[in-house]
Amino acid sequence: MRFSADEWLALHELHAEYAAALDARDLDRWPALFTENCSYKLQSRENFERGLPLCILHLDSRAMLADRVYGARETIYHDPYAQRHVGGPPRLLAREGDALVTETPVLVVRTKRDAMPEVLLAGRYLDRVVPTAEGLRFAQRWLVFDNDLLANSIVDPA
Amino acid sequence: MRFSADEWLALHELHAEYAAALDARDLDRWPALFTENCSYKLQSRENFERGLPLCILHLDSRAMLADRVYGARETIYHDPYAQRHVGGPPRLLAREGDALVTETPVLVVRTKRDAMPEVLLAGRYLDRVVPTAEGLRFAQRWLVFDNDLLANSIVDPA
Amino acid sequence: MRFSADEWLALHELHAEYAAALDARDLDRWPALFTENCSYKLQSRENFERGLPLCILHLDSRAMLADRVYGARETIYHDPYAQRHVGGPPRLLAREGDALVTETPVLVVRTKRDAMPEVLLAGRYLDRVVPTAEGLRFAQRWLVFDNDLLANSIVDPA
Repeated sequence: MRFSADEWLALHELHAEYAAALDARDLDRWPALFTENCSYKLQSRENFERGLPLCILHLDSRAMLADRVYGARETIYHDPYAQRHVGGPPRLLAREGDALVTETPVLVVRTKRDAMPEVLLAGRYLDRVVPTAEGLRFAQRWLVFDNDLLANSIVDPA
Repeated sequence: MRFSADEWLALHELHAEYAAALDARDLDRWPALFTENCSYKLQSRENFERGLPLCILHLDSRAMLADRVYGARETIYHDPYAQRHVGGPPRLLAREGDALVTETPVLVVRTKRDAMPEVLLAGRYLDRVVPTAEGLRFAQRWLVFDNDLLANSIVDPA
Repeated sequence: MRFSADEWLALHELHAEYAAALDARDLDRWPALFTENCSYKLQSRENFERGLPLCILHLDSRAMLADRVYGARETIYHDPYAQRHVGGPPRLLAREGDALVTETPVLVVRTKRDAMPEVLLAGRYLDRVVPTAEGLRFAQRWLVFDNDLLANSIVDPA
């Protein structure tokens, strides 16, 4: 199952916007990349594959995403760090009406002050993207990460 | 030398299928991405550049790939781990008849239980892909990795 | 803001050539990917974001790039290492006349003899690419890296 050239370009535009917003820690741009009703999860592969509900983050509306942004910026006291997302290519799993169901490998590299970059998360995004008046948006973005161990707390979305 | 849009989309579909099969450890999907007669190698850059024959893996038919899958799943007792492939973009080195000769950078990140992800292999794929009735397939896929040191044994293909 | 398919393919050809030249340590191919008058910087995010001038490397003509290549190969005595660039996708920030202004996430993984690969740099390229008779070339390529700590000296361009 293969993307059209238009789908490829539009999907990568969305993926690049997503990574750039988080990696610049410009978190206000993050909820705007989702639909009003949406599902965002950050979950370990172990729990995902066993169908267990526990997630690091589980948010299911754009308003909840905005709330998390507020929390990450204003209420959590933590050691500052920068993220860097690399990954791809995306894989087209299904077309469901207008929606594209895709899977995309990702590494999230974290860098703290006075430390070398480290791989914080290795995993894949399980996405459902839909066309909207503003372009493609995430109706679902789940980051299922391979590592059951986490190096310290995760504050920002990934 | 540049890919056409169709080549780009078809090649990325193959690359994404390949990574997804290994990263899901759904190894039965792996040999099906090669032609019946094929060449798969996993070799250090040091040996590759000096023309030395020693490889970690060297398989030259789809049947040998299937045999390795059996071995990796049924006969080797090892500490379990997950792989995650990221990399690209591919570079077109030559068109030879119907075949595309390409080079693609890759990182293979390994995650063990109760441990952080680590870069297992950094290197590049040297591929020859050909059209078949099932779509593009690897007539050759060699992973030449930069690191002469390996962190523990490699069980699965990469 | 979205790339056309032609821009996407041409830009990735340039990105892939760039990474391949450095990762093969075939440094003579590196200056040829820039315009005669150009700006190459390798700078920490901390200094970049504060507008501070200090860079690891700052070169502003193809001749200066060639001089750095000579230095890296002939005059600097250092522990040998291999680089591996992975990253993307690129993001289109602006079209300015014929030029494309883009941002591309990147990891540079370094491998030394008898050592595992390590993430040397996590960051993004801030590029300005222009069409020339030889194809797209970098009028600007700045690598702004997240890590203020560097693991040992950086010899080669990245």
